[in-house]
Formats: sequence, C-alpha cells, structure tokens
Amino acid sequence: MADMRNIRVGFLGFGTVGEGTYRMLVDNAAEVFAKTSAQIEVVRVGVRDLEKVRAVAPGLVTNDLRSIVTDPNIDVVLELMGGEEPAGEMVQLALEHGKHVVTANKELIAKHGSRLINLAKDSGLDLHFEAAVGGGIPVVQPLKHQLAGNDVIKMMGILNGTTNFILTKMEDEGADFGEVLAEAQKLGYAEADPTADVDGFDTMYKISILAAICFGKQIPLVDVHREGIRAISASDMKYAKQFGYKVKLLGICEETGEDEVLVRVHPALIPLDHQLSSVKGVYNAVWLHGDFVGDLMFSGRGAGADPTASAVVGDLIDVVRTMVASGNGSAIPYGEGMKVSKMSDLETRYYVRFEVMDQPGTLGEIATAFSKWQVGLAQMEMITKVGGKGEIAFMTHVCREFDFASALTDVSNLSSVAKVENWIRVEE
Amino acid sequence: MADMRNIRVGFLGFGTVGEGTYRMLVDNAAEVFAKTSAQIEVVRVGVRDLEKVRAVAPGLVTNDLRSIVTDPNIDVVLELMGGEEPAGEMVQLALEHGKHVVTANKELIAKHGSRLINLAKDSGLDLHFEAAVGGGIPVVQPLKHQLAGNDVIKMMGILNGTTNFILTKMEDEGADFGEVLAEAQKLGYAEADPTADVDGFDTMYKISILAAICFGKQIPLVDVHREGIRAISASDMKYAKQFGYKVKLLGICEETGEDEVLVRVHPALIPLDHQLSSVKGVYNAVWLHGDFVGDLMFSGRGAGADPTASAVVGDLIDVVRTMVASGNGSAIPYGEGMKVSKMSDLETRYYVRFEVMDQPGTLGEIATAFSKWQVGLAQMEMITKVGGKGEIAFMTHVCREFDFASALTDVSNLSSVAKVENWIRVEE
Repeated sequence: MADMRNIRVGFLGFGTVGEGTYRMLVDNAAEVFAKTSAQIEVVRVGVRDLEKVRAVAPGLVTNDLRSIVTDPNIDVVLELMGGEEPAGEMVQLALEHGKHVVTANKELIAKHGSRLINLAKDSGLDLHFEAAVGGGIPVVQPLKHQLAGNDVIKMMGILNGTTNFILTKMEDEGADFGEVLAEAQKLGYAEADPTADVDGFDTMYKISILAAICFGKQIPLVDVHREGIRAISASDMKYAKQFGYKVKLLGICEETGEDEVLVRVHPALIPLDHQLSSVKGVYNAVWLHGDFVGDLMFSGRGAGADPTASAVVGDLIDVVRTMVASGNGSAIPYGEGMKVSKMSDLETRYYVRFEVMDQPGTLGEIATAFSKWQVGLAQMEMITKVGGKGEIAFMTHVCREFDFASALTDVSNLSSVAKVENWIRVEE
Repeated sequence: MADMRNIRVGFLGFGTVGEGTYRMLVDNAAEVFAKTSAQIEVVRVGVRDLEKVRAVAPGLVTNDLRSIVTDPNIDVVLELMGGEEPAGEMVQLALEHGKHVVTANKELIAKHGSRLINLAKDSGLDLHFEAAVGGGIPVVQPLKHQLAGNDVIKMMGILNGTTNFILTKMEDEGADFGEVLAEAQKLGYAEADPTADVDGFDTMYKISILAAICFGKQIPLVDVHREGIRAISASDMKYAKQFGYKVKLLGICEETGEDEVLVRVHPALIPLDHQLSSVKGVYNAVWLHGDFVGDLMFSGRGAGADPTASAVVGDLIDVVRTMVASGNGSAIPYGEGMKVSKMSDLETRYYVRFEVMDQPGTLGEIATAFSKWQVGLAQMEMITKVGGKGEIAFMTHVCREFDFASALTDVSNLSSVAKVENWIRVEE
C-alpha cells in the first residue's frame, strides 16, 4: 500500500467525464488537498484508442486496462468508461486486487450493483457511484446517509436531461417530437442514436439504482415498466397545459406492499404546483416523500463533463478521507478567523421606494441625485396619493452599496422627497 | 466500550426534536437496523424539568446532564437542547469522555464549531450537525462530501420557515407584516418573541455554518451583516411583483477575494425565474453555484419535529455505521430479487386523447364505455377538425390501470371513435 498521504489513482476511460474529472483534480487541487490532507496523483489512464490526443501526459496512457486494475501501486480506480463490459470485469478485478472504486456507470450498477457492493463490503473497500445518478446532484449518498432513517414512500425523478430538454422545447415552441429531436441532435444535446435517452433506458437504470438504495434490494430490470417519449405530440402538450399540467419523463418508485415496490419509467402529467413541473431544459431533479422528512427535492445539472466530475471527485475525496482518517473522526476541521468583506463594497441592484411631493421636477431631481453617484435607474413605478403626495419605486442598475447609500442620503435631503420608505437589495 | 453491535445512546434534551428523534428510532427501528447492523438502545434522557410527562420510560430520565456525558456506558450523545450553554459545555465534556456527538444546535456550531470539530477530530470521534441547517434537507454533509471538490462561488439560502411563511402570506394576501406575524403566532408558526426568526438571527447562524464548510474557516458572527423582515410592507411586495420579483429573507455567502468572503442576511428581491422564488410557506431551500457542479438546489421542510429527527437519525446512523465497519467498506450492501408489482395494478388518473367522428352521440358513447369499467371522467376538451372529424381529450378520475386499459379497448371499438391518439398517466 502506498503512503497514506500520497494516494495513487488510475483512470479507466478518458472521454468527456474522464477528462472533466482529471481537469477538476488539477484545477481544484487546493480544495481537494484541504479536504483530504492527501496528495492525489493520477498514475495511469486506461483508454481504448491510444492514437487519440488527450489532455494528459502521454506516458500515463495505456490501452491495457487489466494492468491498471491489478497494479499494486494503485489505491483507487475511477471507472469512467460506461457500459456493462468490459467495465464490469475491470471493477470486479480492481476490488479483488484491493482497490477502492469510484464509478459513474449507471448501467453497471443497475445490473450488478448488489454483487459488486457486497464484494467491496466484504473486502473492506469502498465502491461509490454518486455520478451514476443525477450527474452533479448529490442524491445517492444523501439517500444512503442523511435520509437513511426514513421509510421512503415514493420517489420521482427527472433523470434524463436530453428528454427533459426535448419536452421543454416542445412545450415552449408547440413543436412536435421529431423536429425537436432533430434540433437537439444538431446542438449535441441528443445522440445520433437517441434510443438510450428517448426510450427511457437511461432513466430506467437510474431509478432502479435509487429504488435499490431506498428499498434495500436490487431491482430486476426486466420487471421495470419502461416507456419513452416518442409518442408525445404537440397536441398532447397543448391539452396538458389546458388541464393545468406539464409533461415530464419520470422514473418513479414507490412502496406497494411489504417488501414489494413498483418501479416505472414513463411520461407523466405533473400539476403546475408540483415542484417537479418547474424543472426545465437539461436540468435533472429528484423528488421524494419520506415518512419523517416529508417532501424533499434536489435539482441541478444531471449530466455533462463538469457536473459529473464534481460527483466523481466528491466520491474520491470521501474514499481518500476515510483511508487517511481510518475510521470515525473523519470530520473536516476548519480554522477560525475568516476574513469577511464589508457590505459597503457589495455590488448589486437595488429596489427603493420614496414618498414624494406630487409636483413637477421631483423625478428629475431624484434622477440627478442618483446619477451624481453613478447609480443608474432601470425601472420605475409611480402613484399619486391624497394630500399632494405621491409614491415612486425604482429598480437601479448594478452599483456599489456605498454609492447607493450615499445617493440615498442625498435624495432624502431633497425638498421634493418626503421620506425614504424602504429599500431592498436584489439577488439574481 | 460497549459491544459494537449494541450502541448505547444518551439524549440531552427531550423537547419537540428529542421526542421526534426518539419516535423515529422506535417507529423505524427496522430501517435503522438494516442500515447499521446494530441495535440502538436509548439508555439515558437528560431534561431540565423532571416533572413533565414524556413519551419515554421514566426510569431513563434524569436532570443530571453531566451524568450522561460522562457515563462510560454511553457511546453516542444526541444534543437536542439548543442554545449556547449548557449545551456547549455538555458537548465538550461528551467529546472529552470519548463519545461521538450528534447535535441539532445551530447557535452552538455557528459560534464554537471550529473548536468542537477540531476536538472531535483530534479524539478520533464524530461530531455531526446535519439538523442544525435546513431541518431534514441534506445540505451540511453533501457540502462536506459530494460537493467537496468544488470551489463554491456563491450560496443563497431560504433558511427560516417562519419568515418565509410570513413573506409568502404577505405576498398572497397583500397583508402587512404586523397582521401576518400575529396570525403566524396564533397558528404556532412564530414564537411569542419572534426576534430569533424575524430579525434574522436564526438565518445568520445557519448561513455562517454553511459558509464555514464551503470556505474552510469559521465566520466571526460579528462580521456577518444581518437585517430582518420587519421593514417589509405590503407596498414593497406589490412593487416587487410589478418589477417581476419576489421578496425572500436570504442568507448569502460568496467569495470576494483570496480567502475572503462576504456573509449577509437580509431581505432580497429574487427574480421570478430564479428557482428560489418558488420556495413557499414553511419550506426551506439552499441554492448554490459551484465551479464544476454549476447551479444546484435542495429544498424541503426546514424545521419541525419529524424533518429534524430525520437529519438527527441520519447522522446517528452514519456514526454507528462507521463504528461498526471501522473504516472503508462501509457501503450498505443490498440483496437481489426485489419483488416488483405489476403496472396493471397501478391506481392513478389518466389523460387520453381520441380522434372521433364529429356527430351527435359520440361523447355519450365514450362516457358509457368508460363508466362500464368504473372509470370516471373529470375534465374534457373538444375540437372540431376538417372532414367530419373531431378530437376529444379527457382527464379521468383515479382508477386502476387494468380498468383504464380495458375501457380504452372498448372505446377504440366504438364506431364513433376513429383512433386512440395517445394517453399519459398523471402523477401528483
């Protein structure tokens, strides 16, 4: 075993996700070190095609995957190839050779999770797969840890960005499935062969993994009901809207009896007041109802190099931290005395409301006072009140809080301004 | 140390959260055992007032808190008293006596987190505090683990249910702060002395804890800018709406320079297309932007006995699992062969669209065919097309999928129905 302060990592696969993960380890080396107290060194990168130019030292690259998973100098294997084989054989070999494994492989875990997790557990090794579901959204580990005491009654997920992008476009533009798919393919949001996405296979793998964690047993994929979105038309979207719903492709699992569940993937009408209905474009979300936690939702970017890398590196940090701390007490301590900036340096937009004299020239005086401090006015509403007074509300452009406050003082001293009623910062 | 398979727990505090946590450990003992392989036994409950009747065996109850945190037979202390002291002294004593600690105490962690976490770490003990921020929403641990590789650029949270309830009511009803506060107090959503909530102290503690985790140093509370919601009027709500915004009380932290942050609590205008603007009533949410993960949001119930218990028990499960597994390989293995229900037994509502003959009697024939299978029709839209045809779309009441499918077959055989165009299940 290598020195515990120097953790040696081997990559299997260096496509989009592999490249993103490598880039995150390099770019955010300071964050990773702060949280692990360990140097993470990438010592081997296994690829299929040796000829392709990659953003990694050529000396690290090999197409002999087996040499990586059996290398006694490697502590952790990151399996970022995808697909059932050879990924499955390589993960098994890595575990048999005493390596912790982090994988982003939904198909592998959906099909062989139970066997591989048990193998890892029996060998005292970690097998993490946060990136397999929901890209960068933390959901696998929160289900296993922070939510572990709950009986999960029902879970529904928008787990595929391609189909959610297509459905959102169809809804926004009143377009039919075929044209939007073609556009998504042109933009690179959908594959040339879109089957895995639009026929629901990707969602099926992901909801099956989540169901296995919630209910404690692997879900036989043959028993999962699966439908895609090819049959949805612009007309369905239109009626759904009239009835007060949106159409989403959902992965759903729920308890149906003692040790019995129903797991299904199909388009569904979601009412507009349900949180899932607001999840747009390539965003993913997982909604669940637990008996103690109640309703809960996680949402974020469910795919792409960077969000997926975020999950892979998070898992790697977990593995490394446990290796270094060996047991309880793996808290990340933090120091004291953080340097905190002054509010007066804040730059944002502001809302402000004045009581004013309802007389000619008031607006001009206020605008001049603001512009003296380089505070631009973006929007305005005005009403007349009884007794010769009025009310004016503004939204400013972005400015420094010091300047805004100075302008306010000047404005409040104008004879045409009775009172600064209130002001509120904007966050967007 | 007690037998590793029988973990002995002491409670400090048995108010709403203590009672909820105890109830969850009893009600969901099977879930907890499945995830820890350990029996969790509550052996002592420390309270202030011995006279109060509580839902726990009287023999367990003591007002000698010190006897709990120094008891050599106790493995884990759950600190659910709240407040700075005596909670702080008790947590320190518990750690000094070799006990893992789970706390829900935001004020304690915001003020003394750095010292206590370092003490735990140096003693090889866990100190978890998921319940201190966001009630049942997993956010503390996901920040420490799954998101740990990110450089968090900005984080904004709706972290106080009372103020979000008040602001939502003000917006919905056009009411002023004072009247809505009085109503919230009557409903039990706001305390008789509402200062901690409406003046932003609660939010300040919570955002300071999150900032410390993101940026690796404790935030001096004296440097946190804090404003409450007392100044917000119905008039401000009205203008905000006209400008396209909602008013929310936010805790915000962001990077402002090398090892420098700005941490602030104040009402803010949030644009309607920002995810945080849809967080209503007593719900909490944390939104963040990380350099790799991008935009992310967690939302759920931020307070209350049951959601808070969910977080406390999740932390306790984590502590116990690490004690039992001692190191890596703490995966929760799951078995194979989950029993999966049939789709034909699903009960839900359905959307369905038909192409029909545009002639008298069509609607009646369809309704009769549905009612033969006990499928009720709830909503309908109809259009006439060229060539003597029309289109009808229905929403059904809740029915069994087998019955719906059978009815569809019958309907499709009607001479007045040209075609079943499509049907989609409803989830709500």
